[in-house]
Amino acid sequence: MIIDERLRVGSIELCDWKLSRIFFKNESRFIWFTLVPLINDTVEIYQLPQEAQQDLIHEISVLSKYVKDRFQPDKINVGALGNIVPQLHVHVIGRFRNDPFWPHSIWQENYSPEPYQESALLALLKTIHLG
Amino acid sequence: MIIDERLRVGSIELCDWKLSRIFFKNESRFIWFTLVPLINDTVEIYQLPQEAQQDLIHEISVLSKYVKDRFQPDKINVGALGNIVPQLHVHVIGRFRNDPFWPHSIWQENYSPEPYQESALLALLKTIHLG
Repeated sequence: MIIDERLRVGSIELCDWKLSRIFFKNESRFIWFTLVPLINDTVEIYQLPQEAQQDLIHEISVLSKYVKDRFQPDKINVGALGNIVPQLHVHVIGRFRNDPFWPHSIWQENYSPEPYQESALLALLKTIHLG
Repeated sequence: MIIDERLRVGSIELCDWKLSRIFFKNESRFIWFTLVPLINDTVEIYQLPQEAQQDLIHEISVLSKYVKDRFQPDKINVGALGNIVPQLHVHVIGRFRNDPFWPHSIWQENYSPEPYQESALLALLKTIHLG
């Protein structure tokens, strides 16, 4: 399975679920996960086989609920865009009323990442248990 | 079923599918549909019953495929944000390499709609058959 290098940069690979590999983005202002379905040559959701579509919505839901329960964000933002990196990937992002982009999307033209301090990232990753 | 007024403004109500009411946004630069699941008091995807989640991904797929086949966009963008209007709604947007926001998201802080001319909108709506 080939995963586009641009999906890996600035992210930490966490685990594989039934359909998707789960990444955690090194971005301290939001809680940002990415699901990458492990099926080659898929760009749009409708190209997934029907069972994989159902796995995808299930994994989006489980991950969203995890983010809500664990980090108490005010809103979950889910997005599958892919204008820059076409390989199908779905963002699941916990947003906060006091984050600097609220209430707008984080997909702003002038977005650039603000990483965690390394020790904070390592400490946080130790507490993330996705099964 | 109550649908937030802000989801109606600038949109045309097209039809009801099994789960969702389908709206078409009066925005001439992209092909922009919105699905609103007809289940009260739902903000996040994970709050939908499991069967409704499966209906949702199916409706996202069918609508995305329709947009791709009918309008030949370069990419479909799918998003469930809801920071401003919390009622669960999913955007399905056909994007074009020559649209003014490409390759960025259309969820920009400075976004404001650019409606169709009325005659063009009416003519277009006559050609949209979602069953």
